[in-house]
Amino acid sequence: MLIQRLTIIGVGLIGGSFARALKRARVCAEIVGCGRQLDNLQEALRLGVVDHYTTDLATAVQDADVVVVAVPLGHIASVFATIRPILAPHTIITDVGSAKASVVADAYQELGEHICRFVPGHPIAGTEKSGVAASFASLFENRRVILTPLAETDPQATALITQLWQHTGAEVVSMSVEHHDEVLAATSHLPHVLAYSLVDTLAQMEDRREIFRFAAGGFRDFTRIASSDPKMWHDICLANRTAILHVLAHFNADLAELADAIEQGDSAHILSIFSRAKTARDKFSG
Amino acid sequence: MLIQRLTIIGVGLIGGSFARALKRARVCAEIVGCGRQLDNLQEALRLGVVDHYTTDLATAVQDADVVVVAVPLGHIASVFATIRPILAPHTIITDVGSAKASVVADAYQELGEHICRFVPGHPIAGTEKSGVAASFASLFENRRVILTPLAETDPQATALITQLWQHTGAEVVSMSVEHHDEVLAATSHLPHVLAYSLVDTLAQMEDRREIFRFAAGGFRDFTRIASSDPKMWHDICLANRTAILHVLAHFNADLAELADAIEQGDSAHILSIFSRAKTARDKFSG
Ligand SMILES: NC(=O)c1ccc[n+]([C@@H]2O[C@H](COP(=O)([O-])OP(=O)(O)OC[C@H]3O[C@@H](n4cnc5c(N)ncnc54)[C@H](OP(=O)(O)O)[C@@H]3O)[C@@H](O)[C@H]2O)c1
Ligand SMILES: NC(=O)c1ccc[n+]([C@@H]2O[C@H](COP(=O)([O-])OP(=O)(O)OC[C@H]3O[C@@H](n4cnc5c(N)ncnc54)[C@H](OP(=O)(O)O)[C@@H]3O)[C@@H](O)[C@H]2O)c1
Repeated sequence: MLIQRLTIIGVGLIGGSFARALKRARVCAEIVGCGRQLDNLQEALRLGVVDHYTTDLATAVQDADVVVVAVPLGHIASVFATIRPILAPHTIITDVGSAKASVVADAYQELGEHICRFVPGHPIAGTEKSGVAASFASLFENRRVILTPLAETDPQATALITQLWQHTGAEVVSMSVEHHDEVLAATSHLPHVLAYSLVDTLAQMEDRREIFRFAAGGFRDFTRIASSDPKMWHDICLANRTAILHVLAHFNADLAELADAIEQGDSAHILSIFSRAKTARDKFSG
Repeated sequence: MLIQRLTIIGVGLIGGSFARALKRARVCAEIVGCGRQLDNLQEALRLGVVDHYTTDLATAVQDADVVVVAVPLGHIASVFATIRPILAPHTIITDVGSAKASVVADAYQELGEHICRFVPGHPIAGTEKSGVAASFASLFENRRVILTPLAETDPQATALITQLWQHTGAEVVSMSVEHHDEVLAATSHLPHVLAYSLVDTLAQMEDRREIFRFAAGGFRDFTRIASSDPKMWHDICLANRTAILHVLAHFNADLAELADAIEQGDSAHILSIFSRAKTARDKFSG
């Protein structure tokens, strides 16, 4: 066994899938689940995702070798503050939040002396679903997990969290907090903002025009991410607003240029943008 | 047999799939294919998509009961102009172009007295692929086909084209040219413009930051349509530019409002936009 007791705070899609994958790999002797709602935790136990559960944070983290904080971004600071006095001097803490600068700021503020055993993390994997019922052991297979260790982070803590993620089938990559937030703003956060915004715009026009009735597969794919949890994406937009607004400004400038080319009938310009994009997209998927 | 001779001008993804579906339904005694490149037509014959082929437009439309113009939007006017003197007085003409006002303008200008047998059409179905090799008989099954008959169009011509599409498994809907172009601008043309533009923006940032390496499934779905044929989407942008720029202006105004809410940290506003969008998207897919 790699570790004795691992505690998951927030046994939802991500926390539940992480627990399932670690159970499958048989690397933890015991997994403790913690959350606010009993029914979700009971389901986690019934599904074999956790070995025990409690709604009490203090009980949950007692004697834990590793604590995984997998709650929504807006709750991370308060979880850190609550567990700080109970954490043992050897307990390693990690999280799975989709934005990292905000979580790291929360950690500096709330974790105190435990900051040296905090390993910020983010698995690049997910679905539109939430809750433990949606979790599955293979969610992280062949996916990337980004760790953004701090200057203070004990390299042995980073090494252990790396190993755990590798046991889920993921590839672990390290980068700076800033780089993480920029890259994710570009490839994940901004696309969600655009999809939500477009669907909302069309929904407002919908009444009069039956727009959605004539939407095809392309639209379905393009807007699938607008089915994601609004609260989670609200949290992400606030947590990573600087990087999101920055890449949005880039996007807006380029889109205005394209709109201008369309208005002017500038064939060469339109074609060069579309062709470059197709080349980039085909390379990415191939 | 519903008709004797049907001619497809442009035996690509759409023209080829239409021919295959009609052959499967055994509603045409003979299908003639026409295009510019011999190899594509030879492949169409080999695949059994057409019974004969010719690269000569005049030969192709001779004695045809129905002529289906399935060439790119930018070539429709010249095809109309070339076939006008050869069309028989009973020949029904239809097209499959993704924008309708521009095709209708081409028809008024080039088809002369044949306008009364012209039935503008657009199947809401497609893939990212082009050419006859990508065509398949079931492409239109359970999809919608929009017809936008003109005031001049003989109702019997519309009825026959409706029947043909129904034989492919599609549901046929009629609407005005303007309504078609607005609805398609919203659900198809604008999403393509946004996807191309976003991928191009990120590709420009890519060199320094390995952005695409950390993109997940959501990004893959969101940008799939940026793999579509750049030339075809260039044609669509020019053909339907008024409606596209109109819905883009709406989108831009709403997106600016959302960006503002993110910048201000206006939780309630962000949440209400995301929640409304999720509700609309879930309803659409369900
Ligand atoms: N979904 C994705 O695609 C994805 C991908 C990568 C990373 N992430 C990150 O993963 C984290 C969790 O997301 P998720 O999708 O797994 O959400 P989820 O399915 O809703 O799970 C969140 C869990 O946290 C629990 N929780 C909420 N507040 C809590 C609190 N104050 N104390 C203890 N438990 C609490 C919830 O249970 P109770 O309501 O019972 O407390 C729930 O089980 C977020 O930080 C998100 O940014 C998500
Ligand atoms: N793809 C979609 O998703 C989709 C969906 C609905 C409607 N549409 C519409 O369908 C039409 C065709 O699109 P597609 O996707 O089928 O394209 P495609 O696969 O590229 O097929 C177009 C065909 O037209 C032929 N062609 C081009 N110029 C011609 C000319 N001047 N004279 C005769 N033949 C010519 C081409 O062959 P040669 O090069 O050999 O001439 C090719 O076989 C377009 O108007 C498009 O707007 C497309």
